[in-house]
Amino acid sequence: MEYIDLTTYLNDIMKRFYPIGVEEDGGVTRLGYTREEDLMHEEFVRIAKEEGYLVETDEVGNTFISIKNYDEYYLIGSHLDSVINGGGYDGVIGVAVGLILLKLIEEDNLDIPLKVAAFRCEESSNFMKSTLGSGLITGESYDFDSLVSQKGKKLSEIFQNRGLNEKPELIKGIKAYLELHIEQGRILENKDLKIGIVDAIAGNIRLKARIKGLAEHSGATPMSLRKDALCAAGEIITAIESIGKNYKSGTAVTTVGMIGNYPNSVNVIPGEVEFSVDIRDKSTKSMYDIKVEIEELIEEVCNRRCLSYDIKLVSNADSVVLDENLRRDLSKAAKDLGINHIIMSSGAGHDAMKFTKLTKAGLIFIPCNDGISHNPEEYAEIEDAVCGAMIILEYLKEAAK
Amino acid sequence: MEYIDLTTYLNDIMKRFYPIGVEEDGGVTRLGYTREEDLMHEEFVRIAKEEGYLVETDEVGNTFISIKNYDEYYLIGSHLDSVINGGGYDGVIGVAVGLILLKLIEEDNLDIPLKVAAFRCEESSNFMKSTLGSGLITGESYDFDSLVSQKGKKLSEIFQNRGLNEKPELIKGIKAYLELHIEQGRILENKDLKIGIVDAIAGNIRLKARIKGLAEHSGATPMSLRKDALCAAGEIITAIESIGKNYKSGTAVTTVGMIGNYPNSVNVIPGEVEFSVDIRDKSTKSMYDIKVEIEELIEEVCNRRCLSYDIKLVSNADSVVLDENLRRDLSKAAKDLGINHIIMSSGAGHDAMKFTKLTKAGLIFIPCNDGISHNPEEYAEIEDAVCGAMIILEYLKEAAK
Repeated sequence: MEYIDLTTYLNDIMKRFYPIGVEEDGGVTRLGYTREEDLMHEEFVRIAKEEGYLVETDEVGNTFISIKNYDEYYLIGSHLDSVINGGGYDGVIGVAVGLILLKLIEEDNLDIPLKVAAFRCEESSNFMKSTLGSGLITGESYDFDSLVSQKGKKLSEIFQNRGLNEKPELIKGIKAYLELHIEQGRILENKDLKIGIVDAIAGNIRLKARIKGLAEHSGATPMSLRKDALCAAGEIITAIESIGKNYKSGTAVTTVGMIGNYPNSVNVIPGEVEFSVDIRDKSTKSMYDIKVEIEELIEEVCNRRCLSYDIKLVSNADSVVLDENLRRDLSKAAKDLGINHIIMSSGAGHDAMKFTKLTKAGLIFIPCNDGISHNPEEYAEIEDAVCGAMIILEYLKEAAK
Repeated sequence: MEYIDLTTYLNDIMKRFYPIGVEEDGGVTRLGYTREEDLMHEEFVRIAKEEGYLVETDEVGNTFISIKNYDEYYLIGSHLDSVINGGGYDGVIGVAVGLILLKLIEEDNLDIPLKVAAFRCEESSNFMKSTLGSGLITGESYDFDSLVSQKGKKLSEIFQNRGLNEKPELIKGIKAYLELHIEQGRILENKDLKIGIVDAIAGNIRLKARIKGLAEHSGATPMSLRKDALCAAGEIITAIESIGKNYKSGTAVTTVGMIGNYPNSVNVIPGEVEFSVDIRDKSTKSMYDIKVEIEELIEEVCNRRCLSYDIKLVSNADSVVLDENLRRDLSKAAKDLGINHIIMSSGAGHDAMKFTKLTKAGLIFIPCNDGISHNPEEYAEIEDAVCGAMIILEYLKEAAK
């Protein structure tokens, strides 16, 4: 198969996924464990069946595709869910690259035992919890009753209705885990490079804060008597931005991505506000230091304004270092193919980090336009994904010898 | 009818309305021109029919009740809609007081031509526009296509579906308009008084601001490269609070009651935020000065943060002075009955202000607990409403002589 054919083949696959959950502005919404994510997996299965591949589904709804059955195999995967109104490349391109690798292995009759995985619910947009599908089969356990979807449904109910298992068996037989993903930042683009090989994935801490004031009439309540929860939240949100911006590590990011305001009416003083806080840094310690700083901030503002509050730790993931040998092997494969690349770390979490507990894991980044991701404008070059696929194939050829 | 019976009668009426649109926490949601508001009007009609009163409905869905038909009549009214998760007294108590006045007039066979009105959609919670029902029949015109409900439906469609008229005939024959309403503030309570007679109603200006940044991945986008619309909004919201608090008039209030954040996802930097601004003061000029100050603030913050924005004037209502003679007559009636009261102004808008163009209008306030309104905790004493009703009856006896 020629490079040009691969590009067309990959492009065709991407086009088949694209219409699922697409919105008017071109963004896609395929939240984990919803109908839209199901449709993505169904399309994945359809492509596999057209090619005559084997299809497996595990106890938590992840889908696996291979040419034949193997006891031991290399696993390449990513996810098919998206954020709310996100882009069409995040996750999907990694699964699609798996499919072109199967195609190449089959056409060239290579002796490489490879499975391609599509994991469920990698994004935290539906349950405020990320990498559920890959986490569950690598030994994570979650409090399913406390995970509630955007539509207010408990994950425990969803699992029950779908006949899924909250405590599945661990996945077995993986010789190495590989993933290709868009960078979602601007480092590669700024350096005019097409490939990044990842050495570490930053951890994150997620909080949910709730501030309680008093909902009163906006016309009849003097400014001095108000207990406005949104004004307090406004003050806190801008201060959280400053904390991230000025943190001494220089690599910390702090984000309030989600806010709910009640009763959210033009003529009522906001009586209650809740918001999420996402803290990330390469060092686990600095994330915890920032967490304390933010908790103290919320306490100070709410005490000063005579408001009550509570803060919940929703999730926390330590930073993860990926296998050094595998990284070197991928780097060597790239060099052998004459592909310029850098070693870099990932600010975002990925399914890859879950597999480090069971096997060695490697992660390859390709650029996305202007670093924009989780946005309808998200765009990556198909050629860059093919380039990444060639590196992985080169690695697999060596490794499977 | 004895005072004690009146209290029971009024209490019974309030209890009949209360279950409509009630929520788990005891708050009520009966948005204007929705099924819940319809149910309120249907209950109003049911009560009227049980008493053998006449029922009229006008071209915009307002309901009128009277003992018989009159060419010229006194009109007492208020509204039956509510804010989202509001209280059971706002508006409803004024309509219910109209019903006890009819009862008294009938039982004592008094020669007072009185109609009781329930106006549609007084709250701005559904269409960001207040006093629609009373406004339309007193000569206001609105851009019905631009008024969109919380559920995204145009008011023009809603009117068409209901067979209502966007340009109804003006209401005729009113000798004077009267209204009783809860104060929704703490002035009466602080002075330990049961009755306020209103001299003026503060105007308001309402803006809708939209800030556009860039929705990007919260892990992979460094703080320095972000265009976070929510951080900008947070800064603006706290500054709007300061503007209201520190404005030289001392009576200004500024409120951001509503906020929408997109895509509102824990791991996405907010790309777009919209929020409402409600500005009120007794002087129309000072409201416009504050409006300019807030517009300049939004411009400054967005320019500094490289964000785009737009600001729309959603509605504006000048301050309204109520009829001085009618106020004096109501005050005299209170004195004659030995009821202590004060003359005060209203920070909130009411249907009464719409009638000043057609006739003389009077407004009586009763306290509500802790000044809390637009909140499930809203509570007023039925005895205070009966007290207000007695003042209005005393006035009507004199006026109708």
